[in-house]
Amino acid sequence: MANFIAVLEEAADRVTVALDALLPRSDGPETRVMEAMRYAALGPGKRIRPFLAIECGRLVNAEERSLLRCAAALECVHAYSLIHDDLPCMDDDDVRRGRATVHREYDEATAVLAGDALLTLAFEILAHPDTHGSAARRCELITRMSAASGARGMVGGQMIDMADDKSDWDIATITRMQRMKTGALISFATEVGPILSDCDAFVRRAFEGFAHDLGLAFQITDDLLDVEGSSQDTGKRTRKDDSQGKATFVGILGVEGARNQAERLIAQAKDHLDPFGERAKILRDAADYVLTRRG
Amino acid sequence: MANFIAVLEEAADRVTVALDALLPRSDGPETRVMEAMRYAALGPGKRIRPFLAIECGRLVNAEERSLLRCAAALECVHAYSLIHDDLPCMDDDDVRRGRATVHREYDEATAVLAGDALLTLAFEILAHPDTHGSAARRCELITRMSAASGARGMVGGQMIDMADDKSDWDIATITRMQRMKTGALISFATEVGPILSDCDAFVRRAFEGFAHDLGLAFQITDDLLDVEGSSQDTGKRTRKDDSQGKATFVGILGVEGARNQAERLIAQAKDHLDPFGERAKILRDAADYVLTRRG
Repeated sequence: MANFIAVLEEAADRVTVALDALLPRSDGPETRVMEAMRYAALGPGKRIRPFLAIECGRLVNAEERSLLRCAAALECVHAYSLIHDDLPCMDDDDVRRGRATVHREYDEATAVLAGDALLTLAFEILAHPDTHGSAARRCELITRMSAASGARGMVGGQMIDMADDKSDWDIATITRMQRMKTGALISFATEVGPILSDCDAFVRRAFEGFAHDLGLAFQITDDLLDVEGSSQDTGKRTRKDDSQGKATFVGILGVEGARNQAERLIAQAKDHLDPFGERAKILRDAADYVLTRRG
Repeated sequence: MANFIAVLEEAADRVTVALDALLPRSDGPETRVMEAMRYAALGPGKRIRPFLAIECGRLVNAEERSLLRCAAALECVHAYSLIHDDLPCMDDDDVRRGRATVHREYDEATAVLAGDALLTLAFEILAHPDTHGSAARRCELITRMSAASGARGMVGGQMIDMADDKSDWDIATITRMQRMKTGALISFATEVGPILSDCDAFVRRAFEGFAHDLGLAFQITDDLLDVEGSSQDTGKRTRKDDSQGKATFVGILGVEGARNQAERLIAQAKDHLDPFGERAKILRDAADYVLTRRG
C-alpha cells in the first residue's frame, strides 16, 4: 500500500502542476475569481478521479499528455461541484480538505462564480487540440463529461440529495442518487482512456464494471467516515449526514452491514480487472485503498 | 420595425421549440431541477443572442439546423447567467422577465443547480454530431463559447461588477467590464455562422466589428432603461443600478451623453454591415431596435 500511496501522490502532483498552467491569471479586477478557482482546484486533495483517468488510460496505452489534460478537466469539475455543494444554500459547510470552504475564504458570490468558471474551464481544456489530435474524440469526451455532470448526472444527484423528506428512501433510491451524484464522474474518469485510444469493447465494459462497483464502495466508505472518522483525517465536518437528515447507506444498512457491502463491492470491482492480470495491480491497490482509507 | 419584430419573435419561437426538445425530462426526484431549467430557459425573453446567431449565420449560408442548435446553446448559457446573477449573494433580484426569479419561484439550491445544469447542457448540445458534421467545427464552437463565458469573459465581467468600491471607475473600466460581462457572448453569437460555414476572413472581421459596437450600445441602452424605463416594460426591477452602487455608462456620461454614445455606436455597427448590402437589412433593423427598445 506504501507504493500505491506514492503513485497516487505522484499523480496528484502532476495534475496540480498541469492545473496550475491551465488555470487563468489576470492583473485586472477579475483576479479575485481566478484566485478562488486556484484556491479550490490547487488545494490539498487525493485526486482520486484524475488518478483513475491516468491509470486506466495507461492500461490502454493512451497518450500521457492527453490523459493529464483530461485528469485536470476532471479535477476542475470535481472542484466546482465541491464549491457549489458547500454553499450555505446547499450543505452549508465551512471546512473542506482541512481549510475554509471557498465561500468562507472569499464570499458567496465569488464562490458561485469560481464554480461556474471551473466548470467552463473543464470544457475549454477538453476541446483544445492539445487534448487529442482527433476532434471527434474530443467531442466524445465532452459529450460523456457533460452527461456525467449535468441534470441527469452529478447535478441531478445533488438535487435528489437536497430533498426535504427522505424518510421513505430505500437502498435502491440511495443507490440511484449516489450513482448520479458521485458515480457518474468516477465512471467518466475510467472512460477517458478508452475514448482516447483504440481499445477493445471488452476493455470499456471491464472498466465500466470496475467504476460502477468502486464508485458505490467509495460512497459507502464516505458514509462510514462521516460516522466513524475524525474531522482531522477527512478534512471536513463529520457526523453531519445524520444531523442534516441525509439518507445514507450506513443509515439503512447499519455500520456493520455497510462495511460488508463495501467489501463485497471492492472484491467485485477487482474481479472486473482479471483480464488485465498483473498490469492492473495499481488499480487493484486503488480499490483496496478505498476500503481502508481514513480520509 | 414591425417586420423586424415579427422576425425576432419568429426566431424566438423556433429557439423555444428547439430548447423544449433539448431540455431533459425525468420522472425521478431530480425532476425539480429540470423544471427549474425549463422555467428559466423557456420563459419569456427577446432571445437577442439566438436571433443574432441565426441571422448572421444565414448571411453566410450556414445550415439552419446547426444554427438553431447553437442558438439554443446560447440561450442556455444566457439563462444560466441570469439565474446565478439574480441570486441573493449576487444582485439579489426577485423579478426577471416579468416573473419571479428562479430562486424565488423554487429555492436557492435549486437555482444554483439549474444554472449549473444549463451551462453543462449548452456544451452537450454543441458537442453533439447533430450540431455539425465536422467535429473540428464543434470543438471550435466549444472553445469560443467557453472563452466567452468563463473567467476571462462573462464570469470575469460579473466578478468585476461585484466589486465593492467603484468610485474611481472611469469609462475605460466600465467598457472593459461590459465587454466581458455581456459583450463576449454577443460576439460569440455572431461568430457561430462563420465557424459553421466556409466564409471569408473579411466576414468574420465585419461581424466582429458589428458585435463589438452593438454589444456596447446594448449595454448603454440597458443602463438607460434602468433609469428611464418602467418595470412593466423591462420585466425586471429598475432604478437598481444607482441603489446598488453599480458603475454605469449613464452614471459617468449622463443620460444625454449616454444616449448620444449609443447612437454613435449603432451607426458604427451598421457601417460594418455595408459589404453585405441589402442582404443585411434585418441586422441593421436589429441595431436600430437596440436603440429604440423599451424593454
